[in-house]
Amino acid sequence: MGYQAYFIDLDGTTYKGTTTIPAAARFVQQIQKLDKKIMFVTNNSTRTPEFVADNLKTNHNIDVDQSNIYTTALATADYLDQYADHQHRKVYVIGEIGLKNALLANGFTFDEDNPDYVVVGLDSDVTYHKFELAVLAVRNGATFIGTNADSNLPNERGMVPGAGSLVKLVEYATQRQPIMIGKPEKIIMQMALNKIGLTQNQVVMVGDNYHTDIAAGINVGMDTLIVYSGLSKRIDVEKEKILPTYQVDTLDEWDFSKH
Amino acid sequence: MGYQAYFIDLDGTTYKGTTTIPAAARFVQQIQKLDKKIMFVTNNSTRTPEFVADNLKTNHNIDVDQSNIYTTALATADYLDQYADHQHRKVYVIGEIGLKNALLANGFTFDEDNPDYVVVGLDSDVTYHKFELAVLAVRNGATFIGTNADSNLPNERGMVPGAGSLVKLVEYATQRQPIMIGKPEKIIMQMALNKIGLTQNQVVMVGDNYHTDIAAGINVGMDTLIVYSGLSKRIDVEKEKILPTYQVDTLDEWDFSKH
Repeated sequence: MGYQAYFIDLDGTTYKGTTTIPAAARFVQQIQKLDKKIMFVTNNSTRTPEFVADNLKTNHNIDVDQSNIYTTALATADYLDQYADHQHRKVYVIGEIGLKNALLANGFTFDEDNPDYVVVGLDSDVTYHKFELAVLAVRNGATFIGTNADSNLPNERGMVPGAGSLVKLVEYATQRQPIMIGKPEKIIMQMALNKIGLTQNQVVMVGDNYHTDIAAGINVGMDTLIVYSGLSKRIDVEKEKILPTYQVDTLDEWDFSKH
Repeated sequence: MGYQAYFIDLDGTTYKGTTTIPAAARFVQQIQKLDKKIMFVTNNSTRTPEFVADNLKTNHNIDVDQSNIYTTALATADYLDQYADHQHRKVYVIGEIGLKNALLANGFTFDEDNPDYVVVGLDSDVTYHKFELAVLAVRNGATFIGTNADSNLPNERGMVPGAGSLVKLVEYATQRQPIMIGKPEKIIMQMALNKIGLTQNQVVMVGDNYHTDIAAGINVGMDTLIVYSGLSKRIDVEKEKILPTYQVDTLDEWDFSKH
């Protein structure tokens, strides 16, 4: 009966920046027709699931509910929800609305003087003062969490600093290793499996980036499908020690009757 | 006839934060009486030499001219002055007044779109936008310079991010190694020797931090004097492979008749 669910990356797999990838919409429609589950799993912590679902519907012809979106913001909040007891839920956040809302929804409160956790994600309004508060709190004993290690993200001018670059600053200034949540770490995958109620052998991870999407699938013991519509190139992936389970140039190549 | 000049570190050696170290003032007065040269060599790029000299005079009983101050800002500007031709002097700076003034004084102009150099130093007003411009410029081919690698500096609340932490963000987001100027690198020492017109065997480097002050002296082949008034402890320094030339608990122990 094949895979019960598909975990699918967003940028590079489902769309490229603002450009639609039509094969991705057809791929999603097939999954929906077969009544399998879908979860879009993304390292972007800045957006809310509502925003992501609305963008997919409005701009990329993909009609899914916000419950089908799993961001590194949600994964961070779900991980901390497991990890934290109810008396210690003060968090200092470097991040945007997606991350802040996810933490508030899980019963965390914001505190900049004496937090239990410092969470660092992408924040296009980050300042020295925010870094100062994060560093002081981690040096003072707060648990240090990074949403994801991505060094860059694309914008209209080029490759600008990603969440991982902000994490590096705090890491160097505190000499502490953060707990990292996003792909290629397995935490986000485990949290997404928990949410969807399946085990890793029932799901295939679909993405364009070997070093994040595919590595995350491999790290959690999941089958993987790489699509060469984005960042990774077949010539480079073929050199990796552990290959993706499946490789396609476009998601149209995927034969649902076989999986 | 002994050493012709003394290179002396500031914080931890000459004063501790706002607290005067009286032995340092006596040490400087002896050097002045003997008509030897003095250069205060500091990794702080945020202040102008005028400010540093004024602070020494007003608060620490040390009467020196601004020409006796050599900051990593001046060293960066002097290094780039040697390195850059006159047609390519556009620089994008993450830094404060000390660094900006030093670069302007050496004929550099500020440019955020297409600079030849990106210089990253401590900037307590740094923002995501500044990091974005620095990262885009380095990725676009600008030469990447870091004033100094210090991970932290002390303020009234604790150890906050230092210049090196800001450099790390840009390094991770560009995957480029910067040219580092400040202690323990030898560039600042070579520039200071150039300025004072002496060679490394004519000067002794005086400081409290083995890993910056003393390492810089060692790296440039200079004799070194560690004073245990600041960061490094004798018990740790004694474990190093290369010991300082001289070790004292206070600068009052230094016997000028022997050196």
